[in-house]
Amino acid sequence: MAHLPSRSFQAYQVFSANTNVGKTILSAGLVRAAAALSVGADKRKTKAFYLKPVQTGYPVDSDARHVKRYAPLAETRQLYAYRDPVSPHIATNDPPKDSVVLEETKKALRTFKESLMTNEKGWALLETAGGVNSPIMSGELQSRFYRPLRLPTVLIGDSLLGGISTTLTSYESLHQYGYDIPALLLFDNKSLNHQFLERHLTNAENRPQVYVLPPPPTKLEDPEADAAQLQEYYQATENYFRHVVEDLAQSHQQRLDRLESLGDKARDLIWWPFTQHKTVKEVTTIDSAYGDIMTTFVPPVKDNAIKSNTGTTTNNLQEGSWREMFDGCASWWTQGLGHGSPELTRSAMYASGRYGHVMFPECSHEPAVQLSETMLRTVGQGWASRVFFSDNGSTATEVALKMALKSSQDRYRNLGQKAGRIEVLGIDGGYHGDTIGAMNACAPNTYNAQVTWYKAHGHWFQPPTVVYKNGQFRVDIPASMAADQKPVPPVLINNLSDVFAQPSPADARLDLYRTHIRSTLERLVHEEKREFGALLMEPVLMGAGGMIWVDPVFQRTLVDEVRRFKGFGEALPPKSAEVAQSKNTWQGLPVVFDEIFSGCWRLGRKSAADMLQTQPDIAAYAKLLTGGLLPLALTLTSDSIFNTFLSDVKIDALLHGHSYTAHPMGCAVANTSLRTYERMEAHGDADQARRDWGADAASDGTSGVWSLWDQKVVERISHLDHVEGVVPLGSVLAIQLKPEQGRAGGYASMLSQKVQHQLRVTESPNSETEVAIFGRPLGNVVYMIASQVSTREQLAKVEKILLRTLESH
Amino acid sequence: MAHLPSRSFQAYQVFSANTNVGKTILSAGLVRAAAALSVGADKRKTKAFYLKPVQTGYPVDSDARHVKRYAPLAETRQLYAYRDPVSPHIATNDPPKDSVVLEETKKALRTFKESLMTNEKGWALLETAGGVNSPIMSGELQSRFYRPLRLPTVLIGDSLLGGISTTLTSYESLHQYGYDIPALLLFDNKSLNHQFLERHLTNAENRPQVYVLPPPPTKLEDPEADAAQLQEYYQATENYFRHVVEDLAQSHQQRLDRLESLGDKARDLIWWPFTQHKTVKEVTTIDSAYGDIMTTFVPPVKDNAIKSNTGTTTNNLQEGSWREMFDGCASWWTQGLGHGSPELTRSAMYASGRYGHVMFPECSHEPAVQLSETMLRTVGQGWASRVFFSDNGSTATEVALKMALKSSQDRYRNLGQKAGRIEVLGIDGGYHGDTIGAMNACAPNTYNAQVTWYKAHGHWFQPPTVVYKNGQFRVDIPASMAADQKPVPPVLINNLSDVFAQPSPADARLDLYRTHIRSTLERLVHEEKREFGALLMEPVLMGAGGMIWVDPVFQRTLVDEVRRFKGFGEALPPKSAEVAQSKNTWQGLPVVFDEIFSGCWRLGRKSAADMLQTQPDIAAYAKLLTGGLLPLALTLTSDSIFNTFLSDVKIDALLHGHSYTAHPMGCAVANTSLRTYERMEAHGDADQARRDWGADAASDGTSGVWSLWDQKVVERISHLDHVEGVVPLGSVLAIQLKPEQGRAGGYASMLSQKVQHQLRVTESPNSETEVAIFGRPLGNVVYMIASQVSTREQLAKVEKILLRTLESH
Repeated sequence: MAHLPSRSFQAYQVFSANTNVGKTILSAGLVRAAAALSVGADKRKTKAFYLKPVQTGYPVDSDARHVKRYAPLAETRQLYAYRDPVSPHIATNDPPKDSVVLEETKKALRTFKESLMTNEKGWALLETAGGVNSPIMSGELQSRFYRPLRLPTVLIGDSLLGGISTTLTSYESLHQYGYDIPALLLFDNKSLNHQFLERHLTNAENRPQVYVLPPPPTKLEDPEADAAQLQEYYQATENYFRHVVEDLAQSHQQRLDRLESLGDKARDLIWWPFTQHKTVKEVTTIDSAYGDIMTTFVPPVKDNAIKSNTGTTTNNLQEGSWREMFDGCASWWTQGLGHGSPELTRSAMYASGRYGHVMFPECSHEPAVQLSETMLRTVGQGWASRVFFSDNGSTATEVALKMALKSSQDRYRNLGQKAGRIEVLGIDGGYHGDTIGAMNACAPNTYNAQVTWYKAHGHWFQPPTVVYKNGQFRVDIPASMAADQKPVPPVLINNLSDVFAQPSPADARLDLYRTHIRSTLERLVHEEKREFGALLMEPVLMGAGGMIWVDPVFQRTLVDEVRRFKGFGEALPPKSAEVAQSKNTWQGLPVVFDEIFSGCWRLGRKSAADMLQTQPDIAAYAKLLTGGLLPLALTLTSDSIFNTFLSDVKIDALLHGHSYTAHPMGCAVANTSLRTYERMEAHGDADQARRDWGADAASDGTSGVWSLWDQKVVERISHLDHVEGVVPLGSVLAIQLKPEQGRAGGYASMLSQKVQHQLRVTESPNSETEVAIFGRPLGNVVYMIASQVSTREQLAKVEKILLRTLESH
Repeated sequence: MAHLPSRSFQAYQVFSANTNVGKTILSAGLVRAAAALSVGADKRKTKAFYLKPVQTGYPVDSDARHVKRYAPLAETRQLYAYRDPVSPHIATNDPPKDSVVLEETKKALRTFKESLMTNEKGWALLETAGGVNSPIMSGELQSRFYRPLRLPTVLIGDSLLGGISTTLTSYESLHQYGYDIPALLLFDNKSLNHQFLERHLTNAENRPQVYVLPPPPTKLEDPEADAAQLQEYYQATENYFRHVVEDLAQSHQQRLDRLESLGDKARDLIWWPFTQHKTVKEVTTIDSAYGDIMTTFVPPVKDNAIKSNTGTTTNNLQEGSWREMFDGCASWWTQGLGHGSPELTRSAMYASGRYGHVMFPECSHEPAVQLSETMLRTVGQGWASRVFFSDNGSTATEVALKMALKSSQDRYRNLGQKAGRIEVLGIDGGYHGDTIGAMNACAPNTYNAQVTWYKAHGHWFQPPTVVYKNGQFRVDIPASMAADQKPVPPVLINNLSDVFAQPSPADARLDLYRTHIRSTLERLVHEEKREFGALLMEPVLMGAGGMIWVDPVFQRTLVDEVRRFKGFGEALPPKSAEVAQSKNTWQGLPVVFDEIFSGCWRLGRKSAADMLQTQPDIAAYAKLLTGGLLPLALTLTSDSIFNTFLSDVKIDALLHGHSYTAHPMGCAVANTSLRTYERMEAHGDADQARRDWGADAASDGTSGVWSLWDQKVVERISHLDHVEGVVPLGSVLAIQLKPEQGRAGGYASMLSQKVQHQLRVTESPNSETEVAIFGRPLGNVVYMIASQVSTREQLAKVEKILLRTLESH
């Protein structure tokens, strides 16, 4: 991006450990040294810039004026100035919006950069106000406010008594926001703080270089005499500052060298998941991420074939540059609270400091107990009473299967001894993860086709599906479902929430589904003599299978019918008092919901089960559970499943576990995530979206169903000829494209890849309303997943590009 | 522990955001208010204590004197005093050891507590010096130095301009070490910092209560007049301070209420891994952990049956109390750098702030690339060229299996089409995790006996094993290995490193092993017509199987013979140019090492493969990889395996992945862990242990093999009658007990549980040389696993108790 540094445009920010530690004096010294740099081997001279976004106490105080006076060759700029010499958040009653201040700051940097002649290089310093965590006008902390730029930081330490502490705490706070701190500057003082700091930081990651500078002269009352002695000071310290500036330049070049090499290194050393390495074209180097935005780095184009549609200036192309991209795949469907969430970082670091990781079996710790309480109160409410911890969706599914299958074996006499194998019932197109157990519970598909040990252990129903097309919700029912195998006319529904409501008596689906399910179960069990131990499915939306929206009416009917069916085996009396006294005793087969993708407010409501108005006996959660920061998964279950494993014999227990089971950091982060989702719900953050999609008129007594994506935009997309249909549910927007003639559909399709490529290279990504979009192809489906905190403003930008791209296709 | 708070003994520490923000004045006010508390409903009056561990500028300055003057009812104590009014780390050239200062601090608190009469309650305040991150005498930061106590913190904020930043950065630094901060105190000032801070912290986890107090009078030159006005100030502000003290008391009681309930809550809500809930007796509540120590909370004994051997005073038993325990199982074998490692926290928070989690396929980010480089340079050196990321040992094993089996299928014509199933070769007693794929690669055992979908897919060799008994290393060879099935005499070896060396020509093992392996392979493949796709094993030490030390000579021979065997199938020509040109082309079968337990310096050397002097084709790592903080796993592999998956067809790729694949936080933490292990090795941290175990005399040109546990102690244990043998390798010390007559052995055995129980309840856990030990039973094996940074001092305490307990058994 034009406001971010490049090879020939260095930019830094100055933060200080405290007020009155010499920030402006040192800033002026640095700018002065930069402006005085001699012409280098590249024959280009350096132009120095100084930017003071916020000045208080103006015009008595003006840091920009001070810098200009002692570094007259530099161009200086001040953006916002207030008369009171107080913190910016109390200097004005009419604070400008953060987004505006940030835009102005970016613009100033961009202007600096664009003003450079071809024989010039740029060097810019942005001076913040007060300390690291001092607020700007809106009350946002500066450390957070400037984070989207993530400029390398010069930290001005405090050299007086007590200054070690303020310097280190400031360093730690900056570090916590992911800033790089190449330089730490202090004045020389008898406290010798610089010596201590240098020693202390020796082994730190990305440790700053510590510089000690001669202290400035004591301020004189006579302004002219003061200016004269300062002039003298700057002349006497020239070498010190030049040394810092030269080191910074070196670290800048090294940073770029490393960034330029990262893509190739990854390609050479890493084996990516789900990736055919032979066909990889472009590697995306992610330098950092914040909120919905990933700041990627585009290395210089090596040949001269510079394409015009990549949206960067020729200069950027030759030099390599950063590019901000909207994370349209929510980083594999994980993002709930955005990248680099300060709240999640705080929770993580507290848990890390308090516990690290601790042993879990027969142990208790606060984050795990709190998480269990929250999950049972929310997604588990009314049915679940136990929480099992593991690491990812796949392991959570395996745990669920172990629980369910053993429960069935325990209830039904000789189950598994006849056919030698106990199977699951499921839905075709489902996906539950990549470990063998989870794979075996899926129908044969692209993912498992080449896996040596894969064996299909189940029967999977062909599901009726829903899409939004031409402004209406259309339920397509497979012909195989009708007794006569003849095509069934689709059912059309006008309102999103009504897709989830109980159908009217005139609706033929209920009877059709019921009859089909019953006859299938009869055939499987009585004719084919197959044995089943669980019903496993993704409620509402089958994600990896291609964003397939299953008719909620079908899923509800399936659960009901499986619970009613009497043929799964000859039930034994309960083996123990605990089993006999279980609450929520499962019926028919244990019903397992894979809510890894759909759970934790992804689709708007707390769980897909809540949208179906159906309760499982076991359910698995991951992804959004930890807000998008780190791995953790949970399997919730009812009393009645748990009690099956109770006995006096140790090895009757569920002998499953992972080393980092219930690691406190993951639990703490999940607690913060869930607390935030709950607060957003209570606060009505989605109320506008609910109204737009008519969810506030839901007739079934629930809070209805809505999409975070704009109703009008989604409707327009639904009318496009080459769009098969759209799935707008909560933060998910999936667009199924019609397959190209004669080409493969599904996961193997390359169709969405073309659209995704176009989304990446917008024509003017630097403009305020444009944004490049990072997406991930999924066969013929183009999908966008927002985080739970994406703003309407941000989504509107994405919608604009998406619509334009799809319409031009 | 007697130095930690209890129901009737509150203790707090005061930290301040900066020097000169009124820490001592506010401390005195709090102590004064505590001493003035009226007798409560329990008829007990409150005695106030004040502790100043370190005072500089003494005797001119004395905070304890100040407190005593204005809170004369309180007992005050000062431990270390220095004349210079400077930071403690430069106030003395002869700093006392941190451990001594900490012990003195604990003793002072203990003395306070023990001085209480039965009609008294205690209230103690510990005042730190300088700011949060100011150093103490040794140069250690106070924030870290006081961490083992983890006292609830009263933070004194800075109320002046700029004070928001120093207060928040200090808050964040304390938070990062896992401190609870129930109160934040500031003076009233026109900057209104308290208002901002209160608003800013509204949604923070464990948010502090913010208190604003009237500012103290400006200091007068005349000491008497100054004292008089301060006296007046304290009288005028009595209500303010009482309010704070009352709130603190409430938070103290709530904290204890919650801690007391945590064990029962966990028992009620959580489904623990590997736990038979019906037989759980004691739940360990872990309140925090630091280094090797877990600070557990023991709730009050409800009945009057107070046992004398629990090592706490009657008072503690009735009230509930904290107990420090050595984490003897390294929290499920994960701990490398100790609990709550500040370095790991820092790395984690930086990565969290910089990225959160980001998408991985076809993407690159610094922490993942750096981790790949480090792994390939260390454990992968000489054989590996690719790194695949997943979440835990089980998934890393499944990935390894998918890689290996497909590679075999790709090379051998029609492999798997004949027998319908491709199996693995392995070693009986091995364990590779709990997902179905990893389970199927293990021989039938206790763990998989009850798993519905478990199917043994392999042949597992009975291994010859090694134990240390009576001061010698004894190799036991199964009789089944001899051609005549007759018992084979054990081989005795004197030096640990020699167990790993190539045996002398006189040693019959080589020929015996070779013949046995060859004939077994012939039988399996040619007679039984079985098909194999991989050799999978834990090199050197089979952990979960019962800490079984396999004869390294056998494992080396097995790898060699499998690589030499020609019968695994009819090899096809390489299917592509990439495969044909692979480096390190695998022979026979892909050899997979499960280094999840043994890898990353656990056993002293970087990997068990390094100890075997044998290189695998694929290897899996987890646990110590992240130093003991959070889940991450890696599968390393050679070029030749990777190239098998190259093609122009997307679905020929390894279609495996997890949402949080290569999450930056995990990678960053792993980088710091590996960097630390490498540094320790380069620094020769284990040199003393190497000498003690004779590893410095290793004759095979390697760095030998050693144990971190004391050679003399281990030798004594090896002589005990009821000890079958000992396994002393790196940080692992496993003691196999002889099975009791007529009882089950192996995992089902309850034998080690008895010993572990005794280790938990030492007679005098408060004494300097005693420590309670938290262990986890593993059938008939008692094991202790240290972290890589456990000190000799700490291990010596553990060895003393361990030896005494085993000798008394």
